[in-house]
Amino acid sequence: MINQKNVQLGTVRSCIRELFEYGKKRKAEMGEENVFDFSIGNPNVPTPPEVNAAIKEIVDTYNPVFLHGYTSAQGDFETRKVLADYTNARFGTKLNADCFYITCGAAASLTIVLNALLNEGDEVITFAPFFPEYKVFTEHAGGKFIPVKCEEDTFHIDFSRLESAITAHTKGVIINSPNNPSGVVYTEDEIIKLAKLLEKYSKKYGNPIYLIADEPYRELVYDKDTKVPYVMSYYKHSLVCYSYSKSLSLPGERIGYVGVNNEMPDFSEVYAAVCGAGRALGFVCAPNLFQQLIKKVYNLTSDISIYKRNRDKLYSALTEYGFKVVKPDGAFYMFVKSPEKSAVDFCERAKKYELLIVPGDDFGGEGYVRISYCVAPEMLERSLPAFKKLAESYR
Amino acid sequence: MINQKNVQLGTVRSCIRELFEYGKKRKAEMGEENVFDFSIGNPNVPTPPEVNAAIKEIVDTYNPVFLHGYTSAQGDFETRKVLADYTNARFGTKLNADCFYITCGAAASLTIVLNALLNEGDEVITFAPFFPEYKVFTEHAGGKFIPVKCEEDTFHIDFSRLESAITAHTKGVIINSPNNPSGVVYTEDEIIKLAKLLEKYSKKYGNPIYLIADEPYRELVYDKDTKVPYVMSYYKHSLVCYSYSKSLSLPGERIGYVGVNNEMPDFSEVYAAVCGAGRALGFVCAPNLFQQLIKKVYNLTSDISIYKRNRDKLYSALTEYGFKVVKPDGAFYMFVKSPEKSAVDFCERAKKYELLIVPGDDFGGEGYVRISYCVAPEMLERSLPAFKKLAESYR
Repeated sequence: MINQKNVQLGTVRSCIRELFEYGKKRKAEMGEENVFDFSIGNPNVPTPPEVNAAIKEIVDTYNPVFLHGYTSAQGDFETRKVLADYTNARFGTKLNADCFYITCGAAASLTIVLNALLNEGDEVITFAPFFPEYKVFTEHAGGKFIPVKCEEDTFHIDFSRLESAITAHTKGVIINSPNNPSGVVYTEDEIIKLAKLLEKYSKKYGNPIYLIADEPYRELVYDKDTKVPYVMSYYKHSLVCYSYSKSLSLPGERIGYVGVNNEMPDFSEVYAAVCGAGRALGFVCAPNLFQQLIKKVYNLTSDISIYKRNRDKLYSALTEYGFKVVKPDGAFYMFVKSPEKSAVDFCERAKKYELLIVPGDDFGGEGYVRISYCVAPEMLERSLPAFKKLAESYR
Repeated sequence: MINQKNVQLGTVRSCIRELFEYGKKRKAEMGEENVFDFSIGNPNVPTPPEVNAAIKEIVDTYNPVFLHGYTSAQGDFETRKVLADYTNARFGTKLNADCFYITCGAAASLTIVLNALLNEGDEVITFAPFFPEYKVFTEHAGGKFIPVKCEEDTFHIDFSRLESAITAHTKGVIINSPNNPSGVVYTEDEIIKLAKLLEKYSKKYGNPIYLIADEPYRELVYDKDTKVPYVMSYYKHSLVCYSYSKSLSLPGERIGYVGVNNEMPDFSEVYAAVCGAGRALGFVCAPNLFQQLIKKVYNLTSDISIYKRNRDKLYSALTEYGFKVVKPDGAFYMFVKSPEKSAVDFCERAKKYELLIVPGDDFGGEGYVRISYCVAPEMLERSLPAFKKLAESYR
């Protein structure tokens, strides 16, 4: 018998993938323009032109043996130095190059951090609704995955539920702000409260509880007064998992990093464990061409204003049609209350109007659906009458 | 307590890395041209010019949203189709696109395959000397690593030792031909004998023993009559872990694949487990730009003739100086018998002549040293007097 857990993971497609494949088939039947696919988080805004220009410049000017050669396992030193300087200037931290470990994207960052921290049976808390792969990554690292429901209707942290979920076995808490799938951004007060609570229970149980900030959506916030607090400024035992997938529209290229807070007393051990986990998982180093690229474009983003316009248009249309939606502060997802009890049934009905949206069940958000609005604005525009009819079908 | 095994893996540098860092320091002190660094397998021959030209063409002509977007987890369909067609034409297999799973290089291929196949406590055999990370990857996947000594002085498979190492718990056998560190290529007879033995014990214990061929050096063979048998043609329960790191001199870009033999009766389950393991380990997909690149350059290699000349020159010099060496058929390593009992002491003495070579101990090859000859030919030329003096110091 081979590993049945991995057979299972490879056999049961996530409902997002399932719908994505259905969408491909349906578009072939109905015409691309007649299917409204809001199923996946594949950015539809192109990478900024500087990215492709920089790739060509790098290929033209670098020594190919250096360019395509191994970097050290933690990543090119100069790139890590640039990341440290940028982070310090932006957030007032005192990080250095050796606080960073460059990875093949956010998923890699998370599996590396979880494998670095966890021993068999350790518990990892996250807030529901959550990105479904957190469960897969935690369990593969030997951990128990403990989802804690957010406040109903706001999707902010429910601290009393959190407090009752913490045990002597709690090794880490994953936060994801801006959040997939709710779009919520945690406020500074919320992060301060969270930090205090984690300090209290770290002391109580005599073991640090690590705060893991999964931040692929950090740059995707749409209102001037929305700030995404940087966890390292509030909590010593914190790690940041970053990715350029969404900010630079490079999801297929797999480039991101882990940042380890050098204020944590056990910094050296944690950083070593990050290196060890990356090694054991088979990462070797992140793609060097993209490591060199990041050095040049680390402070750019794709044209985020397109997502903002999508958010505003979709939010006002859906609320006008009578749907119940928390207005997202960031990321490019909207978490909409299903007008009937079963979100799965709601999504099935939406298909009749050629609307592809994902039930919240896999995200730990039963009774809600996720709409990914990282889509072409024209498609979103064309889809609105379908959303209207869908709403009317429930009257 | 965080994960101590990963702390350990991240703290204890491999002796190769250790020597590599020593070399960097020493070069700064002594001048680059006065240190002869044979420590690591970083190809010194540049990628063929077609590679950089293709990268620029892809960047110029592809839709950036597609180019930098996610592929399916198993990789771009067209690239997998190209790999299947090419493999079938070359080796007479009947593979299709869905037998391939594109990865972030050979290390990723191996961790994915091992995690797909192993349950806690399963045993994985390999032949010593071996690439040291096999042990790390096997143990992280929950397996027990069982090295089996090769025939003394030839480094070919010792079948009687192999036979006594197989148990009811043997889940897989990793072979690596051309071999790192010995340079040996297994003959067709050897692979046939291995296949028969594995069939016999698979039947005896009622469980397939999977043959895992780690093939980053497949294209690096130097003599016309040296053939590297393709395991899928000889054994049903076989998987191939391939990488373009060495053939195209792209080690830092992390691109390779897993091929699963569709003649194995449990093919669908094994392929699903490969997909599941890739997901659980956090790979998502291999870098898309390099997936698109492979479609265009899959049948090219760097200028291998440089390695052949290096091999010939180094082999004849070392044997002339009195060293005992098995002439490598492929890869770019020479495994040389230490003139004193301790290879570690021998390597320390070599340092006095500014020669950086690696003791075989970590490879399960005590009493030998590994010399990586993927170096600039001029450096190799300049190093020969130092090797001569080193030999003379033992007279």
